[in-house]
Amino acid sequence: MTVQSLIDQHRPTLDRALEAIRTREFWSHFPESIKEQPEEAAEQGRRAFEARLTSTDAQGSQGTERSPYGLPLGVTYPHHSPDELIAAAQPGQRAWRDAGPEARAAISIEILERLHRRSIEIAHAVMHTSGQAFGMAFQAGGPHAQDRALEAVAYAYAEMTRHAERARWEKPAGRRGPLVMEKRFTVVPRGIALVIGCNTFPTWNSYPGLFASLATGNSVIVKPHPRAVLPLAISVEVAREVLAEYGFDPDLVQLAAEREGEKLAADLALRPEIRIIDFTGSTGFGEWLEASARQAQVYTEKAGVNAVVVDSTSDYAGMLANLAFSLSLYSGQMCTAPQNLLIPRDGIATDAGPKTFDEVTADLAAAVGQLLGDDKRAVEILGAIVSDDVVARLDRAPSLGDPVLASHAITHPAFPNAVIRTPAIVAVDAKRREVFGAECFGPVAFAVQTASTAHSIELFREVTGQRGAITASVYSADPAVLAEMEEAAQDAGVALSENLTGAVYVNQSAAFSDFHATGANAAANSSLTDGAYVAGRFRIVQVRKHA
Amino acid sequence: MTVQSLIDQHRPTLDRALEAIRTREFWSHFPESIKEQPEEAAEQGRRAFEARLTSTDAQGSQGTERSPYGLPLGVTYPHHSPDELIAAAQPGQRAWRDAGPEARAAISIEILERLHRRSIEIAHAVMHTSGQAFGMAFQAGGPHAQDRALEAVAYAYAEMTRHAERARWEKPAGRRGPLVMEKRFTVVPRGIALVIGCNTFPTWNSYPGLFASLATGNSVIVKPHPRAVLPLAISVEVAREVLAEYGFDPDLVQLAAEREGEKLAADLALRPEIRIIDFTGSTGFGEWLEASARQAQVYTEKAGVNAVVVDSTSDYAGMLANLAFSLSLYSGQMCTAPQNLLIPRDGIATDAGPKTFDEVTADLAAAVGQLLGDDKRAVEILGAIVSDDVVARLDRAPSLGDPVLASHAITHPAFPNAVIRTPAIVAVDAKRREVFGAECFGPVAFAVQTASTAHSIELFREVTGQRGAITASVYSADPAVLAEMEEAAQDAGVALSENLTGAVYVNQSAAFSDFHATGANAAANSSLTDGAYVAGRFRIVQVRKHA
Repeated sequence: MTVQSLIDQHRPTLDRALEAIRTREFWSHFPESIKEQPEEAAEQGRRAFEARLTSTDAQGSQGTERSPYGLPLGVTYPHHSPDELIAAAQPGQRAWRDAGPEARAAISIEILERLHRRSIEIAHAVMHTSGQAFGMAFQAGGPHAQDRALEAVAYAYAEMTRHAERARWEKPAGRRGPLVMEKRFTVVPRGIALVIGCNTFPTWNSYPGLFASLATGNSVIVKPHPRAVLPLAISVEVAREVLAEYGFDPDLVQLAAEREGEKLAADLALRPEIRIIDFTGSTGFGEWLEASARQAQVYTEKAGVNAVVVDSTSDYAGMLANLAFSLSLYSGQMCTAPQNLLIPRDGIATDAGPKTFDEVTADLAAAVGQLLGDDKRAVEILGAIVSDDVVARLDRAPSLGDPVLASHAITHPAFPNAVIRTPAIVAVDAKRREVFGAECFGPVAFAVQTASTAHSIELFREVTGQRGAITASVYSADPAVLAEMEEAAQDAGVALSENLTGAVYVNQSAAFSDFHATGANAAANSSLTDGAYVAGRFRIVQVRKHA
Repeated sequence: MTVQSLIDQHRPTLDRALEAIRTREFWSHFPESIKEQPEEAAEQGRRAFEARLTSTDAQGSQGTERSPYGLPLGVTYPHHSPDELIAAAQPGQRAWRDAGPEARAAISIEILERLHRRSIEIAHAVMHTSGQAFGMAFQAGGPHAQDRALEAVAYAYAEMTRHAERARWEKPAGRRGPLVMEKRFTVVPRGIALVIGCNTFPTWNSYPGLFASLATGNSVIVKPHPRAVLPLAISVEVAREVLAEYGFDPDLVQLAAEREGEKLAADLALRPEIRIIDFTGSTGFGEWLEASARQAQVYTEKAGVNAVVVDSTSDYAGMLANLAFSLSLYSGQMCTAPQNLLIPRDGIATDAGPKTFDEVTADLAAAVGQLLGDDKRAVEILGAIVSDDVVARLDRAPSLGDPVLASHAITHPAFPNAVIRTPAIVAVDAKRREVFGAECFGPVAFAVQTASTAHSIELFREVTGQRGAITASVYSADPAVLAEMEEAAQDAGVALSENLTGAVYVNQSAAFSDFHATGANAAANSSLTDGAYVAGRFRIVQVRKHA
């Protein structure tokens, strides 16, 4: 198959994606239902994953991964120094640049199509590194991540092709006749891009940057989180396979697996050849990258504090069920999960009558209990705890205020060593900013007792202004409160969900429709994905001459 | 007149500009010919300018301007502290944000239309601050700057409206029926933008940032160069007049005139409220801004070293005439002016036979002499020297190598105290990187003797790689050399002009067609203008709820 036939083949997908990023209506290219995978895929994917567990690389680093489900992993990966990675990244760059936007978009989409066919293998890898339950690992780590990547490819393509490639410039000049110039405008990549992955969403959070940089002509070095290498190792493998198949240098996409404690990301980030960095992770390292990697365009998603302003509701049961799910899903280990529930001390009006602060929190605790009452179902929602740090925070939670809901351990029916915990809810007074004013990553929610909804909104403004947020949410039956909250969300620069009482959760961010993060607050300096996310990944170099 | 009627009135202009930024073909909205100004405009403009020379402001700072033509200026301006400027910038922001992209684009265009009608007054102001000759001050400071601003408005509008404002998101969900959400996507500005002007092109270099920030909803503080305040003072005045007329807070655009030695730009730049900075000026301050103003998006145009690779030509006379003009225009005080002429020591092939290095440089010197032979014509090309620093560099030039052309002073027929100098050309060996390897701003060109054209291109790569460049140029009759130079220009990330032998000069950058600077080398971290130049000036904040 030639590159041109690949371009023709994927053109309809690209065109449809270009429409979707404009309308922002529902669209998905990669089916999220596991049932749409071929019949044999489940078995094949599982076997492919299992085969990897015994693989070792002669030059391999020590394996740095461990499954939150207790499955022995022991996968090792080749290790390369920054010098080796950077040297290998360069030879293929010119041909990749010269291939042009169409070819790069088509190759990118081909990589995604093949990743889609590997979704089950990747799902197992995501599950056993992030701790996500298998169903979520499949969706978020597979089709949803692939859709987000396709969205980034569409933005990159749109941005690279918004100008003509060539122009005839004909300026009237009176009697002398026009001045006529031929101009050519070439998309030139910035150089080498570094993608620094996170532990919880190794593919979903890394693909947009990876594919935005690749489609715009850059060489990409993928540095996974040491605890979540395999999903990206498989992804890089697939990308390299496609690149090589179409005559490009596979080293345009490289895996940079690191040894325990090596600090490879920091070493690479300061190299002058690294011109783009995409990072998801801690605020500390994200801010260090922003301040230190001055030679690069740095895109960061860091920690935030997500709030729910609870004012009133016309669907009390729906609100409780929705919030219970949001707090429980993947044990709150999502950058989109709510942390602070801001509830007036005098309680709220509901369709089930007025509810005091204590009633609301108790009813929410009961809703969580009901949702997670069956262990077998519970583990499919909760997933496993990703790290000891999260367990430690959870263990400390009751001491931070008045426990409303205690966390307890659950035994996974298939993985007896899995670390699984139900969420904790702790009531605190609004004065305790030191408790709820920073991110407490994991299944800990604070029910913050405020003086009034106005006070809740004020607190939301303050904490978001200081710490940032990826999501915000409000429950109110009062249009004036919704309007006020919308104003506050715009001022604070955070996306707002209103009155979610059904099967859409504040944690969810849909590709092609929801802008994930805004870049307008401290939690992230950019959105995944929009024009600003791709426009700086390349430059335009022109040549002009007389016609 | 209502905002809506203004939107309707300027819609065709906006639509045409949107087309132009896509096709990059020749287009201009603001006529560059002074003859297209109304008959009375010349007189009115002159009188308006003269009236300003005696104006004083009670709270005014000392006047910091002085005319390179020796005209006493003595204009003073109101002085405001950073606190005052920032406090005043805020109250109008919400209404400006809520006005939306259409209204902001229309208001921006209305400001530009009115600036166009003030072009002659502004031309006098540009002339007597920058030292540009009147004809150039009119074109570059008036219509060309206005076109660049309109280009920025078009990019801003395109970027803000590339997504739907609202979407109905309908996700199939099997038997339960679809999940339906209403979503609204709001363009939210980053906050307060700071525009830091330069001495040589006070309007042309400031308007793109000013209008890009204003059109995307930000409040703008304009801090002119202390020696070139008046052109921006008039511009700010016009912007404020239009804003007020349409019911917006005039303080959305403020002038920040500074006292001598005040360092107001640095003070403002570090304020957390300043979220965007546009700067044209020295590499030192530009790099300081990039490193220090971490809270802001910083767009800089700094110093560069522009080169001409002279390999061969089929129009020797045309080449000499073109280069002579490029070296002379506004005394080389342009970020686009060529500095280094890289010429093989064995000479070049031309349509007039082979020419040695010495012949080429001597013929170029003669061409400059011929171009500037008539003082009255010469001053219209040269303009005046903008600062004592430039004179000092010029005086030192002969000592840097072998003088090929000596600079001499010219007396302006109308302004006896004007500081006017013809360009100097100094021959140096390619080994003398310490001489030609950095910017020597002003009318000094180095004829660099290289071993060969291959060596010239290598030097071009090296110096551009190290110091950056805004323009590059090549003369060659050999397609292989042109191809090699195109490759080098792409690698170095600089715009290339080939074989300019007529009435287009490498110094010229045409709005809507030429991307001014690339952002891909050390001379500038962004282009004026492209998608990347506007995309980071706002964010998108969404609200979603069940339909």
